[in-house]
Amino acid sequence: MIYGHDPRTGETVGAALPETDSAGVDRIVSAAAAAGAAWRATPAAERAVALEAVADALSAHVDELWRLADQETALGEGRLRGEVARAAGQFRLFAEVIRDGGYLEAIIDHADPSLTPPRPDVRRVKQALPGVVAVFAASNFPFAFSVAGGDTASALAAGCAVVVKAHPGHPNTSERVAKIVREALPNPDLLGLVQGMQAGVDLVKHPSVVAAGFTGSVAGGKAIQKLIDERETPIPFYGELGSVNPVVVLPSAPAKEVATGFAASLTLGVGQFCTNPGLLFVPEGDELRKAIVEAVEGTTGGPMLAERIRDNYLGGVERLSQLQLLAEGKPGEGSWAVTPKVFTTDLDTFAAKLPAIGEECFGPASIVVTYRDVADLRPVLERLDGSLTASVHSTEPQEAAEVVEVLGRKAGRLIWNGWPTGVAVCWAMHHGGPWPAATTTTTSVGATAIERWVAPTAYQDWPEELLPDELKDANPLSIPRRVDGRLQVS
Amino acid sequence: MIYGHDPRTGETVGAALPETDSAGVDRIVSAAAAAGAAWRATPAAERAVALEAVADALSAHVDELWRLADQETALGEGRLRGEVARAAGQFRLFAEVIRDGGYLEAIIDHADPSLTPPRPDVRRVKQALPGVVAVFAASNFPFAFSVAGGDTASALAAGCAVVVKAHPGHPNTSERVAKIVREALPNPDLLGLVQGMQAGVDLVKHPSVVAAGFTGSVAGGKAIQKLIDERETPIPFYGELGSVNPVVVLPSAPAKEVATGFAASLTLGVGQFCTNPGLLFVPEGDELRKAIVEAVEGTTGGPMLAERIRDNYLGGVERLSQLQLLAEGKPGEGSWAVTPKVFTTDLDTFAAKLPAIGEECFGPASIVVTYRDVADLRPVLERLDGSLTASVHSTEPQEAAEVVEVLGRKAGRLIWNGWPTGVAVCWAMHHGGPWPAATTTTTSVGATAIERWVAPTAYQDWPEELLPDELKDANPLSIPRRVDGRLQVS
Repeated sequence: MIYGHDPRTGETVGAALPETDSAGVDRIVSAAAAAGAAWRATPAAERAVALEAVADALSAHVDELWRLADQETALGEGRLRGEVARAAGQFRLFAEVIRDGGYLEAIIDHADPSLTPPRPDVRRVKQALPGVVAVFAASNFPFAFSVAGGDTASALAAGCAVVVKAHPGHPNTSERVAKIVREALPNPDLLGLVQGMQAGVDLVKHPSVVAAGFTGSVAGGKAIQKLIDERETPIPFYGELGSVNPVVVLPSAPAKEVATGFAASLTLGVGQFCTNPGLLFVPEGDELRKAIVEAVEGTTGGPMLAERIRDNYLGGVERLSQLQLLAEGKPGEGSWAVTPKVFTTDLDTFAAKLPAIGEECFGPASIVVTYRDVADLRPVLERLDGSLTASVHSTEPQEAAEVVEVLGRKAGRLIWNGWPTGVAVCWAMHHGGPWPAATTTTTSVGATAIERWVAPTAYQDWPEELLPDELKDANPLSIPRRVDGRLQVS
Repeated sequence: MIYGHDPRTGETVGAALPETDSAGVDRIVSAAAAAGAAWRATPAAERAVALEAVADALSAHVDELWRLADQETALGEGRLRGEVARAAGQFRLFAEVIRDGGYLEAIIDHADPSLTPPRPDVRRVKQALPGVVAVFAASNFPFAFSVAGGDTASALAAGCAVVVKAHPGHPNTSERVAKIVREALPNPDLLGLVQGMQAGVDLVKHPSVVAAGFTGSVAGGKAIQKLIDERETPIPFYGELGSVNPVVVLPSAPAKEVATGFAASLTLGVGQFCTNPGLLFVPEGDELRKAIVEAVEGTTGGPMLAERIRDNYLGGVERLSQLQLLAEGKPGEGSWAVTPKVFTTDLDTFAAKLPAIGEECFGPASIVVTYRDVADLRPVLERLDGSLTASVHSTEPQEAAEVVEVLGRKAGRLIWNGWPTGVAVCWAMHHGGPWPAATTTTTSVGATAIERWVAPTAYQDWPEELLPDELKDANPLSIPRRVDGRLQVS
């Protein structure tokens, strides 16, 4: 049986939930596959209405949902209400995305008999992958990266059915969210939920599963990739894994604002963000150092999401203790509470300890690396692993040029005078990056996340009456298309 | 040493070429990486001019090139001249693609302080992967899928340097083409060439390699994927592997045209196409059967590209000999010549022998599967592996509806009353499909092949002067962009 736990007490909360056995996984995936076949053929306009119904249902249940999730995560009312709104907002964004239709990348090349060899009529459009998408929920966002998170919303939007493997950190929240979403969908089987580690294994190996989304650790991601490699038919694996999110503070940056911003970003949600700033490069000097110490000492920790996550954090802090402790916050309250800790070292020492010292420590811990000259940064930044984000603090853009060139190859999102926590859900967002930040070049947040669940088909000399509406000459769906080489917006 | 061989005689031709040793691979990849750093920062307009210079250089050397390739492949003047033109045409198409800029998928979301939480300014654009693309050349297209093939053209267009592992079937042609392309590029190191199997291993494991393209067998693709799995940093692997290209002939199709079209497509280039029609489903009945026998008996085989390819074909034919031989062509002339062979069986027998009987036999061999009722086809088609193409022959679109639904999930390109050989290089082409046709949802032919070598970066609150031109408000490059949710074509 699976139990939720209250991070404040360590005690179990909610119902005892059975682990889904292999027969159960097969039943749930098969039901999703059957429902998905009709969903894939459902016009985008109807799918959009269903997505908005899910958004409405989530919003309507926010009072109940935040309380349930707070019991299992201790993330608090403000954050959890905001996260339900964010999850609902993602369903609304994807409704907009599929009404727009640009993501289908429809292309029409009319026949050209004058060419050598003569060119047939060729038309291409993307369509939902024909099968079920497996989603592995994250621990740290019980709504926005879980059962009703961005992977689920984007896959449903694309026209796929989804089966989620619940995160053990919030099993009751997962069950409740699944019920709400299922009731809002035209066919409840379009969203399945399985519980338990073995169920995750069975899920990703199921022949009806055509892709998998994952948000979690590098080790977890590698384990799922290994299971996928054992499949008879490989499937795409969209994993968002580890990230240290380097922040480079340049000499012109104002010390006070940097220090307070850093401490706030570091300790938000007890540091449990994949975008937590784990590395801060700062110029040598007392002013910024003192400001950071003061700001960090003003923070307070809190309970982490799970006992294992707390233990991993303590292990990470132990590893960082080879460096000098610069500052720590006040301990948080609760069984699984931890204390924010910031360590420091100079650039040479840091470089000598790479790559191990550059690995993510999930939680409110960070390393402040001091440098003498901006020009010294480049070779060290060059050696960092890929991250979801890299940030630069500066009031003089020209001073940043060289640093920016390196960071642009190390991270999926570059932030100017800001902090990596907080990922806007919008058309332009890219939440991914070079390995190990992500396993592919795609994003798990923002409009283009839908690209993961579609694949192109080309139609050659195909009769108009059998063409998908997206490719008919009259463009009955009024979607953007490239026709004979020219992009057209209707 | 590596030698080219004349398929007509089995004798060696051309110079003895050294295998590239590990130090050589490292030197070539490192030089490519250095050249690539500048190339990646080169404006698209300049890259486009360079691509056109390559196209011009290939065209200018066609007289020399076809002769050289003919010695090593026996594919003949007409085909090889056409293939040089096709390779040059691919470079021209990608020049057009990067001038257009739509593939960059530039998106701008201006800041919106009225939202909760306030949204920062977020802008996203795709950029070349920062490093070297490894290309594994194919045996069967010494120009269009080899050193100067679509993988190379699209990767150079994207802004990546390329190192090609030459196919042992045409080593001298590879060297000559590499020299021509290198001389036409602004920096010859943008294209490297390595020879030998171990060089391929060293190449795909090199830390500066950021992606790999491959056209070849399922076994070859799996071997390269395994090498990639052993890398410290995984890289995307874009493989185009096996494909049987099912063709469904419906009762309304004209027997005579089908039979002659089939025989021609089957034996074109001695059947050495990844789009060769390996499976033909036909209604029971004497007329079509007789027409096929007559058409196939009118064909002539020829020498295959390599001794190993010939041996594999003979092994495949041996495997198909468990079915009834329906017809065979005349044997071709030359050391490595083979005979076109068509086997036949009924739908039930075929289904009973799946999946083994459904595997590709590379060369001019095919299976004619007879069916009684169109409705019987669906469950059998459902069990086929993924293919690059699926074709339907019919004069009554309504008769095809059910078959088309299945085939649409089994192939990347659907062809109406046509044959799969011949892949038009255009904006809408999709040359890919479900595993094992391809390892990802991308294409290796057509304009969108460039998508494989780019990755998005998002810029948050980024200063205008540090933004890439593609994302500046004034749109100085006049590229298509989505601004605040609306796609704009300038």
